[in-house]
Amino acid sequence: MSDPLAAVLTHLDATRAAAEDRLMALARIPSISTDPTHAPACAEAARWCAGRLSDLGFTASVRPTTGHPMVVGHWRPAAATPPVRHVLFYGHYDVQPPDPLELWRAPPFEPKIEQDPVNGPVFVGRGVSDDKGQLLTFLEACRAWLETAGSLPLAVTVLLEGEEETGSPSLAPFITANGDELRADLALVCDTGQWDRDTPAITTMLRGLAGTELVVRGPSRDLHSGMYGGPAMNPIRALARVLAALHDRDGRVTIPGFYDGIVPPSPQQKAQWDGLGLDGAAFLAEIGLAEPAGERGYSVLEQVWARPTAEINGITGGYQGPGTKTVIPSEASAKITFRLVPGQDPERILTAFDAFVRRELPADCHYELSGSRGSPAIGFATDAPHVTAAAGALAEEWGKPAVLMGCGGSIPIVETFRTSLGMDTLLVGFGLDDDRIHSPNEKYNLRSFHKGARSWARILARLASGPASSG
Amino acid sequence: MSDPLAAVLTHLDATRAAAEDRLMALARIPSISTDPTHAPACAEAARWCAGRLSDLGFTASVRPTTGHPMVVGHWRPAAATPPVRHVLFYGHYDVQPPDPLELWRAPPFEPKIEQDPVNGPVFVGRGVSDDKGQLLTFLEACRAWLETAGSLPLAVTVLLEGEEETGSPSLAPFITANGDELRADLALVCDTGQWDRDTPAITTMLRGLAGTELVVRGPSRDLHSGMYGGPAMNPIRALARVLAALHDRDGRVTIPGFYDGIVPPSPQQKAQWDGLGLDGAAFLAEIGLAEPAGERGYSVLEQVWARPTAEINGITGGYQGPGTKTVIPSEASAKITFRLVPGQDPERILTAFDAFVRRELPADCHYELSGSRGSPAIGFATDAPHVTAAAGALAEEWGKPAVLMGCGGSIPIVETFRTSLGMDTLLVGFGLDDDRIHSPNEKYNLRSFHKGARSWARILARLASGPASSG
Repeated sequence: MSDPLAAVLTHLDATRAAAEDRLMALARIPSISTDPTHAPACAEAARWCAGRLSDLGFTASVRPTTGHPMVVGHWRPAAATPPVRHVLFYGHYDVQPPDPLELWRAPPFEPKIEQDPVNGPVFVGRGVSDDKGQLLTFLEACRAWLETAGSLPLAVTVLLEGEEETGSPSLAPFITANGDELRADLALVCDTGQWDRDTPAITTMLRGLAGTELVVRGPSRDLHSGMYGGPAMNPIRALARVLAALHDRDGRVTIPGFYDGIVPPSPQQKAQWDGLGLDGAAFLAEIGLAEPAGERGYSVLEQVWARPTAEINGITGGYQGPGTKTVIPSEASAKITFRLVPGQDPERILTAFDAFVRRELPADCHYELSGSRGSPAIGFATDAPHVTAAAGALAEEWGKPAVLMGCGGSIPIVETFRTSLGMDTLLVGFGLDDDRIHSPNEKYNLRSFHKGARSWARILARLASGPASSG
Repeated sequence: MSDPLAAVLTHLDATRAAAEDRLMALARIPSISTDPTHAPACAEAARWCAGRLSDLGFTASVRPTTGHPMVVGHWRPAAATPPVRHVLFYGHYDVQPPDPLELWRAPPFEPKIEQDPVNGPVFVGRGVSDDKGQLLTFLEACRAWLETAGSLPLAVTVLLEGEEETGSPSLAPFITANGDELRADLALVCDTGQWDRDTPAITTMLRGLAGTELVVRGPSRDLHSGMYGGPAMNPIRALARVLAALHDRDGRVTIPGFYDGIVPPSPQQKAQWDGLGLDGAAFLAEIGLAEPAGERGYSVLEQVWARPTAEINGITGGYQGPGTKTVIPSEASAKITFRLVPGQDPERILTAFDAFVRRELPADCHYELSGSRGSPAIGFATDAPHVTAAAGALAEEWGKPAVLMGCGGSIPIVETFRTSLGMDTLLVGFGLDDDRIHSPNEKYNLRSFHKGARSWARILARLASGPASSG
């Protein structure tokens, strides 16, 4: 451990209370991005973040978009120093609506520190974890570096958006329009979680997503099931046949070619996962289930992190009111998404599904696929130098090796950084499964906040002094 | 042909214009039962019908219900005459709403006589066929008998309701409460159709109906398909599997025992149906289809009239709005009805379906059947004396044998007469497929109206003098 880092960590320990006050101040701003009446609060949160970056010595600005503003901050080393590596940190200052309000123990925008029987002291309030607490771990690490060493060990750009909870409509255009300003060697994102309370993690694998809506049409109009029932094909029956054929009895997706080209996790990664000892039964019990529904032969963890799925997210057709209506509807439809893993091409999957539907659909039915779109999975090389560097820093802080996790969902910003700026992303976060993000009484452990900042302080040091990053 | 009947028929021919005026008068009353603002019009239509019955010499009354009133009329022979047979005629004076109004060529309650290129002169207006024109064919037959012979050949009770188009909520209670007054040897209903423009028909077979709603539950709450997709069973997938398994590739219902005990139509009836030469391809083409979806090996006519079905009338689950929501819902449901044929017991079918669902449902899913109810099919003996009598009368009037038809739907009043009063029903009507009932520009052929009245005049004679009815 270098001398400057030791001072940085000591400073973080000594200034915990002030850091906690800053999170409380940001969490008091009700920056609910989906609610237009809260636009002034979003603007206020943006100004607050830009103000803190300016305090640290960043060149910071609040930048308008057609929605809520972006915050951009730059810190660059003095001109005389040798060239350094450059990272772009991303976070978001907006939060989910707090509804249902009546389930909160205290007003959601009056954050408190409470004692939790399992977690010890925790912040409670909307956004204390997602993402205000998480993004401040990085800013506090920068603060400690700047207040002790007088400089950061790398060039740092910070990008904070205010529309993450509403699908980030302004983000990709903003990144494209300001590519030269934002491009760096590596992106850092702090919006993910740890493996568990004591085990840090880096997320190196994100499933992709392909989706479409299948509309099946039968008779030219709705029919009376007495007058036509029997000879007339019912499109709900036809749709059910197609959907039921999607999986075999072993939970495998039956679309021809669906599994072609998949790149499995490395033996090392799989060994690490197996060693985590995830209790699949407990995972399922928490959601009222008992038997893994995915492919037989894969663990629950693999089914979520490393195997693709075909999921029916919605279905509709015919009469849905109370009682009975003896109708044979003229159409029925389903919304379908495929979670993808590295090696699968979204377009090829959608084309294969199209052929599958054509083959499975009974006579006299027509179909249409609409709204088809997709983005591939992302699998970062787990032996990339920046992954190794971050894993080492995390292990040092937490006293346990960092888990190289998969993530069943997608984080669209990662794909945007890759396609728009050609950058890899390092996903490190300190959220816990019991943080209740998006739910009442959201919390963030004080320990997560403090050790998170210490972790970033270490990661910045390692990225600066460790082996060269690939970016 | 007896002398009195010849005079009756001659009188009907001579008084056509006055009879047509009466239908026009009744059709001018906008007795839309589903619309509370039209309650006064329903009351007016009831009074109008009771008035016409009184004109004929019936003891008629308008009887209040919790909905729209009933009309009951009695005609009995003079006390000195020998005992005669007794029939109960049923019809309804209420009509469907006329919407969409803009598709009518003239206001729906200003009935007109128009020249139709295919049908010749037709009444056009809401209710001219269903059921005002049809019920008046019977009253005009009675009028002609009473105005020529001075009496009817049988005792006649008339029951007209004003809620047929809204599910007849008051009918069964009224019949039960007034059973002694309404019970007769046979019920006559004029609310069905002919085989075609020139071929009269008696409907002797009505499919029954059993229905239920199947709710399938999976996880204890809605899940994010990224976080849980794979190991978590999706109840839409489970529901689709059950529904897809309901039919085999030959269109047969696969529920064990489903076809047990079915009483097929007699060889004579089947031979008559085969002789009708129905163009199955044309039947399907009219609704945009080309291949019969029912059981292979049965004609389209048999599939509709004499074979049972399993039909999914509605399905719902998960996200149904625009775009995508990557949810695994906690439940999904479908509304299912079975059309039944003679020999099938609704309760046994529902029990067999319950066992079928239990067998087909994947692990980790629970299900519930709710709102289950059913009524059996009705198959009247085609050689019953009153059927033979009516068939003879119709053949005499139309110059062609009457077709003994099936009907794919149910007519609940027939089941009510059977269970509440122990009576069989004779279903004779003069509607045509192109009458556009329930649709804009509803019509009724003047020929249907006139020959319908003549047909009833003959049927009354035959029922009185022919072989004894079974009732």
